[in-house]
Amino acid sequence: MAASSSSTSFSSSSSHEGDAGSSYIECFKYSRRATLRSVVGRPDGGAGLVGERAVVGGWVRSSAVVRARRAAAGPASPSRKPEVEATGLTCTEGATHAGLMAGGIPAAASAGGSARRPAVGTALVRINDGSCVADLQIVVDSALLPLDQITATGACVLVEGKIEQVEGTLPQYVVQMKVEKILHIGPVDSEKYPRSNAHSSPDLVRGYPHLAARTATVASTARVRSELVHAVHAFFQSNGFFHVNTPTITTTTATSAGNRGKMLRLTRLFSKSDNGNRITPEAVRAAIKEKTKQVEALKRSESNREALEAAEQDLQRANALSRQLEQGASAESSQDEFFHRPAYLTPCHTLHLETYACALSSVYTFSPVFQAESESLDSDRSLAERWTVDVELAFAELEDAISCAEDCVKSLCSTVSKDCSDELKFLSSNQAGDATSSVIEAAVSSPWQKIKYTEAVNTLLQVTDKTFESKLELGMPLSREHLSYLADDLYKKPVIIYDYPKQLKPFYARLKEDLKTVSAFDLVVPKVGIVACGAQKEERMDNLTSRIEESGLQVEQLEWYLDTRRHGTVKHSGFSIDLESLILFVTGLKDVRDAIPFHRTKGHAKC
Amino acid sequence: MAASSSSTSFSSSSSHEGDAGSSYIECFKYSRRATLRSVVGRPDGGAGLVGERAVVGGWVRSSAVVRARRAAAGPASPSRKPEVEATGLTCTEGATHAGLMAGGIPAAASAGGSARRPAVGTALVRINDGSCVADLQIVVDSALLPLDQITATGACVLVEGKIEQVEGTLPQYVVQMKVEKILHIGPVDSEKYPRSNAHSSPDLVRGYPHLAARTATVASTARVRSELVHAVHAFFQSNGFFHVNTPTITTTTATSAGNRGKMLRLTRLFSKSDNGNRITPEAVRAAIKEKTKQVEALKRSESNREALEAAEQDLQRANALSRQLEQGASAESSQDEFFHRPAYLTPCHTLHLETYACALSSVYTFSPVFQAESESLDSDRSLAERWTVDVELAFAELEDAISCAEDCVKSLCSTVSKDCSDELKFLSSNQAGDATSSVIEAAVSSPWQKIKYTEAVNTLLQVTDKTFESKLELGMPLSREHLSYLADDLYKKPVIIYDYPKQLKPFYARLKEDLKTVSAFDLVVPKVGIVACGAQKEERMDNLTSRIEESGLQVEQLEWYLDTRRHGTVKHSGFSIDLESLILFVTGLKDVRDAIPFHRTKGHAKC
Repeated sequence: MAASSSSTSFSSSSSHEGDAGSSYIECFKYSRRATLRSVVGRPDGGAGLVGERAVVGGWVRSSAVVRARRAAAGPASPSRKPEVEATGLTCTEGATHAGLMAGGIPAAASAGGSARRPAVGTALVRINDGSCVADLQIVVDSALLPLDQITATGACVLVEGKIEQVEGTLPQYVVQMKVEKILHIGPVDSEKYPRSNAHSSPDLVRGYPHLAARTATVASTARVRSELVHAVHAFFQSNGFFHVNTPTITTTTATSAGNRGKMLRLTRLFSKSDNGNRITPEAVRAAIKEKTKQVEALKRSESNREALEAAEQDLQRANALSRQLEQGASAESSQDEFFHRPAYLTPCHTLHLETYACALSSVYTFSPVFQAESESLDSDRSLAERWTVDVELAFAELEDAISCAEDCVKSLCSTVSKDCSDELKFLSSNQAGDATSSVIEAAVSSPWQKIKYTEAVNTLLQVTDKTFESKLELGMPLSREHLSYLADDLYKKPVIIYDYPKQLKPFYARLKEDLKTVSAFDLVVPKVGIVACGAQKEERMDNLTSRIEESGLQVEQLEWYLDTRRHGTVKHSGFSIDLESLILFVTGLKDVRDAIPFHRTKGHAKC
Repeated sequence: MAASSSSTSFSSSSSHEGDAGSSYIECFKYSRRATLRSVVGRPDGGAGLVGERAVVGGWVRSSAVVRARRAAAGPASPSRKPEVEATGLTCTEGATHAGLMAGGIPAAASAGGSARRPAVGTALVRINDGSCVADLQIVVDSALLPLDQITATGACVLVEGKIEQVEGTLPQYVVQMKVEKILHIGPVDSEKYPRSNAHSSPDLVRGYPHLAARTATVASTARVRSELVHAVHAFFQSNGFFHVNTPTITTTTATSAGNRGKMLRLTRLFSKSDNGNRITPEAVRAAIKEKTKQVEALKRSESNREALEAAEQDLQRANALSRQLEQGASAESSQDEFFHRPAYLTPCHTLHLETYACALSSVYTFSPVFQAESESLDSDRSLAERWTVDVELAFAELEDAISCAEDCVKSLCSTVSKDCSDELKFLSSNQAGDATSSVIEAAVSSPWQKIKYTEAVNTLLQVTDKTFESKLELGMPLSREHLSYLADDLYKKPVIIYDYPKQLKPFYARLKEDLKTVSAFDLVVPKVGIVACGAQKEERMDNLTSRIEESGLQVEQLEWYLDTRRHGTVKHSGFSIDLESLILFVTGLKDVRDAIPFHRTKGHAKC
């Protein structure tokens, strides 16, 4: 910070007090420590940093204590089992799902039970700061602090020390840190901390969404999700698309005939103090009186034209409000809608995005969508709040949208498999060896299967090596097991099914010449099912209004949407990618609730 | 598309039928035309493309007709006034705010009135496809189609032709296109199209948010907004932050004492068909019966273990649902909450984001926030749905957050001023010469002013060259005019005000040693006011609970939040950038409703 910028004693943010003789690993630009990614996340595992000093921070994943004899100095190896002993607040690990605090990485040494007397010796503590999959093992002597403070799983530590090589026959780590100075300890209230045990289910983790990211599984998923979001923006930016923030709140309920769930409606919340704060006609009249005086005073003084103009505008607004209040005081209290009409959370962004495509040509949005699905047995696993990537292209037909969707999803998969390889490796090892990487590679490298709906149905009707539970004939929707057969068993790669019967797709899909099918498609991927769907939009006014009426929707609600056809209509096509489904595909996770932080489902909205 | 990928006649998306002799300008990858950006948006204005052919599309911004004598061939110049004549459906232009369809660019030639007989000659039509500020002038002979179809403002055209140089003394364009083939016309229903005139106000445009992006002003703003969003992600990705999707729906109402507006509450929408679809206990019992049979059948057959497991799980879920329905049938119908408890739209993402910062260390989110401000005179201009960039850093103090906020906003401004220079030039020319570019440059190039709150107040109290309307003393908030004095008049650049009295900031701001002030800051920019605010978060459990109680909030609601302090607490800091305010700053626009597509304010939620 330049001296001229401030007269205050504003301190620089990256000063260190360590001895000047040894080199420091560079701090993360905006915080007071080096990230673990810059130490153990390096391709050499940190080998090139031996002898260097650093400040590192993180949360304790697991720990073990080496007894007094070796406490003084020198590297402690986790593989020398006889010297390792159980201590206080550490947690049991080793199981695949080792519970909330364990993070799923087998510990160097297990430690159970609870020892009452303070441990003397050396603690081997694995910490992680969320910057990469790998933990850093820090070696802490009991001379520095009572070891039970630093060995509790979930404790936060900020320490300074020197990177050293790990000795031993089969070290899990290349380097560890010999701690010389404790800068901060954030202890754990062990009475209240959700305890881990070998049998704790993913449901335990889901019950603590605000602590869940401290587990290796949730943290890895979060990093994959972040990388996907970055890749989405990178793909569309580099291809000349504009990002548009379509609204979350909508007053159009006729958005799609195809939605399974109901829309969530908004009401206005009045807190207890509301009556006190609400504007009364009397208060406004008093304000007008005072503002009139102000305006007159300013007119007299002639000193400040800007202030006068502002005051006059202010007065005008107060007058307008007064009229409004007096005319509509009773009307408003009866309707009590903030937007003066019913408003809802949008279940899809297509309609609004289309209006921008019919002006900016190539647009996309990454936004939340909402639906309240409560009528099915699956509703406890159906996300009420999801995130979708919606894309719309003017001057484009179905094939263009399909080609863009294929390129986009391939690009996302390829970025993630390159930049999150550690995360994907960890997640698939954690799930009994689901070979997700080979599935992704197959999806990225080969051209996808493209079949018409009728072809798909006919293929499925001829299947003899498998019996399907759900009935299928031409005109009926394909069920999950049908889709799975096509993508998992038959083609073993992503499948694009297109040209659906019109009754299976929303009103805006473009009617084909046969008057029975529409230009719409679904993208089906192995293991997961549909991750994206799209359509060429009906640009012909007459066809569109007929389809709206056929679908039983109110045309009046969609007048604004029809304007884009009424005025300067254009062929356009688009698609929507379900981000959470895509996360299931790339990570191999099974439950969509694990693909989003703070999942919202029927009966569940924690925090 | 490889032959092996599909047995259907899937056509390639970029085939052209033009004569093989002349070269084609490359099509946009996913649509069937070249973007105007690739023609007139080039640095040479298209000069290097003379003689080449292209398919271009767009919407008509303005037009004029050159009479018969010159209809046959040759370039038509807009500067030869005597030959230009009024024609049918074109609109009047030339005023700064020329109304919805005009887009604010003065037309080559004005055309008013309405001629009844079909025009014979050549139409000069300016089209724009939203890819850049510049229009392309296309020259259409009446032999190709009745000219009134293509001269109506708002009409969509897709045409094929040859790029030619524009002649004349003062051509506004370097090149134009001589149209040879009309591929598509999307006409305008001129009875219903919102008419432009020289005095139409921005309110007209705001009334048609679904058509507004066809104006040059709204389109330019949308492109600036898109570039800002891309720059946000680029900045945080390159600095090692993870993107986290914090939830839109929250059950925590005690989010911040500092919010002016109320929260929007959710209810569940039941459509008319709901009663028919709703699950009854009887239906579930019948389903259980059938599922039990299925399970038994599968057990007997022993053929398919996976199917059996799935069926068993299905049965278990049905049983659970049955219990739930029988126990809570009456309770549920009375509470009727989808999430089984009151749920709201979040007014800020800080609290949820902090939990991820306390695990992944460096995180951000770009998400919508909601508040229903209806109690102030400004409520018709206060956005109920806004987008914010929220950032949270573990192991970081106030200075780190300030330094990150400064770098981030500077980087966003610098990207936009580089990549959207045409848009910024157009927008500032359109607003009576607001010198936005110099304001941005000053913000990017110089270090920002940083002053403590007390220093700011003392400075303002000593001001003699200006009288403030609102009262000020230590402990009181700084009003808009105070902030404006500091940023616009005194320092003439962005100002960071920090160390506020605790009563002016939310409960989570960290208490300083004086026990009176907190480590919080506001970023104030010239012309706009506060565009970002941030704080070092209170990491000490005792202080935090006291501050929650002092603020009159319910501690029970925040138990989950307190968990991050109870278990492994860490110093952390963050900030929140208001995207719409930043857009006002970089574009020079005055009304926040113009900074977002489809604005939602009190009494207004169109589409």
